[in-house]
Amino acid sequence: MERKIITLTTDFGYRDPFVGIMKGVILGINPSANLIDLSHGIAPQDVMAGALVLRHSVSFFPRGTIHAAVVDPEVGTQRKPLLIECENFYLVGPDNGLLSLALEGQPVVQAIELSNRSYHLHPTSTTFHGRDIFAPVAAYLSLGIAPDFLGHRVEGFAQIPWPEIIITDHGLLGKVVYVDAFGNLVTNVRDKDLKAFDRERMVVSVGKVQIQGLTESYAGASEGAFRALINSWGLLEISLYKGSAQNRAEVNLGEAIHVRGN
Amino acid sequence: MERKIITLTTDFGYRDPFVGIMKGVILGINPSANLIDLSHGIAPQDVMAGALVLRHSVSFFPRGTIHAAVVDPEVGTQRKPLLIECENFYLVGPDNGLLSLALEGQPVVQAIELSNRSYHLHPTSTTFHGRDIFAPVAAYLSLGIAPDFLGHRVEGFAQIPWPEIIITDHGLLGKVVYVDAFGNLVTNVRDKDLKAFDRERMVVSVGKVQIQGLTESYAGASEGAFRALINSWGLLEISLYKGSAQNRAEVNLGEAIHVRGN
Amino acid sequence: MERKIITLTTDFGYRDPFVGIMKGVILGINPSANLIDLSHGIAPQDVMAGALVLRHSVSFFPRGTIHAAVVDPEVGTQRKPLLIECENFYLVGPDNGLLSLALEGQPVVQAIELSNRSYHLHPTSTTFHGRDIFAPVAAYLSLGIAPDFLGHRVEGFAQIPWPEIIITDHGLLGKVVYVDAFGNLVTNVRDKDLKAFDRERMVVSVGKVQIQGLTESYAGASEGAFRALINSWGLLEISLYKGSAQNRAEVNLGEAIHVRGN
Repeated sequence: MERKIITLTTDFGYRDPFVGIMKGVILGINPSANLIDLSHGIAPQDVMAGALVLRHSVSFFPRGTIHAAVVDPEVGTQRKPLLIECENFYLVGPDNGLLSLALEGQPVVQAIELSNRSYHLHPTSTTFHGRDIFAPVAAYLSLGIAPDFLGHRVEGFAQIPWPEIIITDHGLLGKVVYVDAFGNLVTNVRDKDLKAFDRERMVVSVGKVQIQGLTESYAGASEGAFRALINSWGLLEISLYKGSAQNRAEVNLGEAIHVRGN
Repeated sequence: MERKIITLTTDFGYRDPFVGIMKGVILGINPSANLIDLSHGIAPQDVMAGALVLRHSVSFFPRGTIHAAVVDPEVGTQRKPLLIECENFYLVGPDNGLLSLALEGQPVVQAIELSNRSYHLHPTSTTFHGRDIFAPVAAYLSLGIAPDFLGHRVEGFAQIPWPEIIITDHGLLGKVVYVDAFGNLVTNVRDKDLKAFDRERMVVSVGKVQIQGLTESYAGASEGAFRALINSWGLLEISLYKGSAQNRAEVNLGEAIHVRGN
Repeated sequence: MERKIITLTTDFGYRDPFVGIMKGVILGINPSANLIDLSHGIAPQDVMAGALVLRHSVSFFPRGTIHAAVVDPEVGTQRKPLLIECENFYLVGPDNGLLSLALEGQPVVQAIELSNRSYHLHPTSTTFHGRDIFAPVAAYLSLGIAPDFLGHRVEGFAQIPWPEIIITDHGLLGKVVYVDAFGNLVTNVRDKDLKAFDRERMVVSVGKVQIQGLTESYAGASEGAFRALINSWGLLEISLYKGSAQNRAEVNLGEAIHVRGN
């Protein structure tokens, strides 16, 4: 039998057994599920970071993969537990926008509010829906249970818009939307947003740092030199060769980034 | 063939390859073992934290799961390597109390000192029994080797008592026994210990923080408000909405917690 | 069908989904690959640490295991992507020395530059060869594709020499080459380098710390006492019972260590 892949993305960190417990629940329902950790290092309650991680990961997994994600500060309140069925994959998690950035260019078949409590653990806690709702639902889905059985169809769900880029007289104004573990500063400026610019002459500035021209790789500069490049997610990124751009530039999430024509 | 689940819980952290090496040893003996990380973020040598993690995880895994745990400051000394066979699962690890809190309500079939060196790696180091004893023993057990073959039966083993709650004239006196990665303060006060209290009027205090009434979820308060709730482990917990209760309350492991009737 | 093991070793850390994305790529090519994390906590760009991790891990995995490793500051430049076929295992990663320390005592069958782009992802990024080259190559290899198909044979590749030990009039001069998550100071002094010394009378010194005699285990001393021992990798190590030798001795990677006869 095919081993269905279930990926897990959370802000649970690596200190506690919460992710392991979710895996126990899944394997109790589908012993042949193939469990893959996408990241559990999402900053606590950072729904946007979780959404970006999903957005840049889903296309690298085989068709039919189930992505369960839990960054869920409003667990136990009125926010709905959600399943989104796409043509190529399934998303399971809270209806708070976490799942929405992964949908760009992905036809949505249907969205299901996970209201059928027969597929949840009982008693169902108000603090750990990862264990009691999302894990068992992902497991039943991986067994071939149809989405319709897991709840009822809903028309709308929470969506995070792509962070807006402002066109100025001199170029673009974007911002840092993600910082990776190397300290690379990932921005909301996409490859396609830079079509009008000369990539050798353009100037990227963030904080006190100015960089002229895009490069192809992290290396090739003197150590400690800032680079601007299009990263593996197709986004403009500021990096520091063999160092942390975040620390050296003293820049944080949300910092403005300017791109000018020369 | 059924893929037996082996979970791993250690204080090895995530910097080094020690856990990966244990997995290599297991797969060399049983290539079809299903390896699940419970946590490797236990604070170094914190046997109590490891015991709590096991206690609140074992019931979420399928019958027959083997839980191997290594928080083992006395490795290479007289402390015994141990296997505890329960009706529903197996525990493998050092005989220092680490395995004992998971036994509450779980009938013990037998305890085996892992004295049969035929099932260990050779040479057997004095510093890494996770690799040389616990990994191979868990692997052989997952192949169906009977516990009796792995050593000899022992009557007693190290037990950590549940940290005592003191009944006072005005209520209960407990303490913080675990802090999770969100900074939530988990106490030794169980749901059942609060039966005599009015859950809306009771007052929970820790350090300089006072909270009236239990709530159901982390959210629903203003940001930065402390909450008291029964967590997913069935224990009284102090949390801070979208923040770290540990940092804000300036409270650490072992801090006293008071519950009063009103 | 046999599930081939692919281990992953990177400096990607645990915050980002980069490792998870590599796993998605591998499972898309070989759904039955058995993916094992060796470590993703290698310090950023620390090729030596990655090489040491591989060196002390490969022998604990079953014959035929594929070890993919990515510590790759020069990604996207002229450094070659490499496959080294040994009698017992395969190594896949950048040609920067990362793979070389694992080869001690391991007959090399052939080294292949991964020049056949048919087995890479397209478009191939200049910043994430883990995803676009090393993951797919490891996956195709695990399906039984012969190394010759993946590129062309090369005679030489980058090698990191074992850090030299200096023989002095009074003993040995080595250095700290790795610090583990417990703060243990691992040196380049091998068990065999100490053959001429009396293990009870020898004196090991690092920074301001002096230790007489080797011991067998971390424990057995008073808390806070430094120990010198041969660790599970066969290397001389300075540890502190229930504490961090690194922090207490105020010593870092590269610090000199002296071993004297008495």
